[in-house]
Amino acid sequence: MKGEQKYPEILAEETQLGPYPMEKLKRVDKPTISITDNVQRFDDREHGFSRAARGDYGPLAQSEFPRFVPKYPLSGAQLDMTAYLAARAQGIEASSKAPLPKDPEILSRHIKSVGYFLGADVVGICQLPQYAVYTHYTSIIGGQMEVQEVELNHKFAIAFVVDQGYKTLDGSTGHDWIANSLSFRGYSTCAFISRILADYIRRLGYPARAHHFFDYQVVLPPVLLLAGIGEMCRLGGIVLNPFLGTRFKAAVVTTDLPLAIDKPVDFGLQDFCKKCMKCADDCPAKAISNGDTVMYNGYETWKANTDLCSKYRVTNQNGSACASCIKSCPWNKPAGSTHDTVRWLIQHTPFLNDFIIKMDDLWAYGKQNIKNKWWFDLETVDDIVQIPKTMRKK
Amino acid sequence: MKGEQKYPEILAEETQLGPYPMEKLKRVDKPTISITDNVQRFDDREHGFSRAARGDYGPLAQSEFPRFVPKYPLSGAQLDMTAYLAARAQGIEASSKAPLPKDPEILSRHIKSVGYFLGADVVGICQLPQYAVYTHYTSIIGGQMEVQEVELNHKFAIAFVVDQGYKTLDGSTGHDWIANSLSFRGYSTCAFISRILADYIRRLGYPARAHHFFDYQVVLPPVLLLAGIGEMCRLGGIVLNPFLGTRFKAAVVTTDLPLAIDKPVDFGLQDFCKKCMKCADDCPAKAISNGDTVMYNGYETWKANTDLCSKYRVTNQNGSACASCIKSCPWNKPAGSTHDTVRWLIQHTPFLNDFIIKMDDLWAYGKQNIKNKWWFDLETVDDIVQIPKTMRKK
Repeated sequence: MKGEQKYPEILAEETQLGPYPMEKLKRVDKPTISITDNVQRFDDREHGFSRAARGDYGPLAQSEFPRFVPKYPLSGAQLDMTAYLAARAQGIEASSKAPLPKDPEILSRHIKSVGYFLGADVVGICQLPQYAVYTHYTSIIGGQMEVQEVELNHKFAIAFVVDQGYKTLDGSTGHDWIANSLSFRGYSTCAFISRILADYIRRLGYPARAHHFFDYQVVLPPVLLLAGIGEMCRLGGIVLNPFLGTRFKAAVVTTDLPLAIDKPVDFGLQDFCKKCMKCADDCPAKAISNGDTVMYNGYETWKANTDLCSKYRVTNQNGSACASCIKSCPWNKPAGSTHDTVRWLIQHTPFLNDFIIKMDDLWAYGKQNIKNKWWFDLETVDDIVQIPKTMRKK
Repeated sequence: MKGEQKYPEILAEETQLGPYPMEKLKRVDKPTISITDNVQRFDDREHGFSRAARGDYGPLAQSEFPRFVPKYPLSGAQLDMTAYLAARAQGIEASSKAPLPKDPEILSRHIKSVGYFLGADVVGICQLPQYAVYTHYTSIIGGQMEVQEVELNHKFAIAFVVDQGYKTLDGSTGHDWIANSLSFRGYSTCAFISRILADYIRRLGYPARAHHFFDYQVVLPPVLLLAGIGEMCRLGGIVLNPFLGTRFKAAVVTTDLPLAIDKPVDFGLQDFCKKCMKCADDCPAKAISNGDTVMYNGYETWKANTDLCSKYRVTNQNGSACASCIKSCPWNKPAGSTHDTVRWLIQHTPFLNDFIIKMDDLWAYGKQNIKNKWWFDLETVDDIVQIPKTMRKK
């Protein structure tokens, strides 16, 4: 090609691209849970929040649904931003393709670098399996909620996650007034990043679509699993990353840009989650299994009761939603901490896992650290911001 | 007040709220440059980019102006996001005020914590001086550029900055194809955060307005100076933060929420900039003064030639814009580095400044580190993405 340039050497090396050493994790050919070839696609309206909205969880959940995020002023502002980002139509690609390197490994490491530059905490890439595409999805384009059939044939999925914030979760009980703001820190930032990343790829001449809160055509957990972001954990259909735990939200950009794919990771989580019951013990909704894995829709999973979980989050009168399982998890540790040794032990000496789980309790991880609480407990009721009724002195 | 709650203890303490120890900097009653009581308000169309668009810098600058950001695919995507965020009308406050603590110090530390939670790197607060309000500003509400007279009477300004990214700037020459993407990492994220923060304050029942790229009613540098974000530096009307240098973009939220204000900072920059000429020496446009400060529109300033600066950025054919002065500055150091000792020396032993500036050269700070270059050099010309013509092999 005329004038082809020498491409950046960093993209040819296995150096660490983001804030966490994802490149050093053990990679495996298949995910550490089994997935049959019989996974059924489903409609995004089968999720708990849609069911709450339809009244499947009773009149309280139905009436609380429209207000359980905006009833707290900060998560309300974050929700509005997320909806505004989702309301923008996704564009079409430039009419000609950019002169990019032919090596898909180089392209993948470039795209991950873009993700990290834009603020993602972990980025991974996989092929998009059709079983991870919703049959129907609900969009808010044009200000109206509209249900459409999904047809999405992109070959690749770029998955990334954004930290909800260790310090803030540390100051929270896990199910108080800041819980939804933690979620929406992740959701809103994921929407912001995924929209820019998809637009960038389209400007290179390749189709790309951002999938984020309010605008998913893709079921995220299997994509995160296949892209090597983490392993499935006791929470059910939820991926856990060894450096963040489950303290993140995610987004995906699907594309036909010819990328190299990552392999799933194995950092020893299956044995750990088998022994650790902290999330199940601490769940205020009693929605998390303390039993063994089962097969469900083709996935091996610690099947959670998503009805109980969703209903609790929507109707929680002592806070806004819930993040108790994220908080109590021993993998929820701050960035740059000295927990690398423990991560090594979990992978290499699983017979110590019971001891490690006990130590985590003794060090009071997972308890509220009131010194890091910086927010006010407030609740908007009928347009009046007030002290939440459940917190007023008797 | 019925049911008033105990407010978070962290907000009553002088602990470090964000990623940098801003709370430990020396505070002074007046900024370290003099400001007379004769600063004149001006029209935002007097800025260099507006002048380039009008043809004041000649036909090349005028024809390049609409494409100098979108000619690089990544900064194009970031620009579009920033414009989309700016296109949204700013709302009005809730009809009743939230039951907040009376102590303005508590409120200020809360608002700063919200800023840090949303992703700001440094947050400061000052009273909004009327001389920092534009006479006219250009908005893009409704998809049209429209010039309006500014009337803004908010009492306080919450100023914050977002890092452009040390690693990426380290991989850049400072005036290559990534330079605009560095700027727009700051601009787009500032727009995202300031919009959420202003919305949050309005939900508490107080008026608030976000001022960010494409939607400024406020002149940012004097506000950053008064809010203690940093000191004015040799670049002219630009604030330098001791932990980030000038490697940031900023936004402001103005409000009537009754806040406590910060004092300006003094970390010894005036003597340092007097002796250090690195930015002036490295400026490819020769736009930065290597002389002494002068008085200009009521400010003591190392008067830069903003015409040369703007024209160079708009017409740069070897890249997209320019960040050379940000890169060459000895204060441009990575986060969490071991440069704390040097910062202490600059403040306490200014007679060593000449030696420190020499050492910075010897250690090759400010040079391109090609190992951190992760992007491709590309240029969109007439809708075709190609190798930039200035980079093709002869």
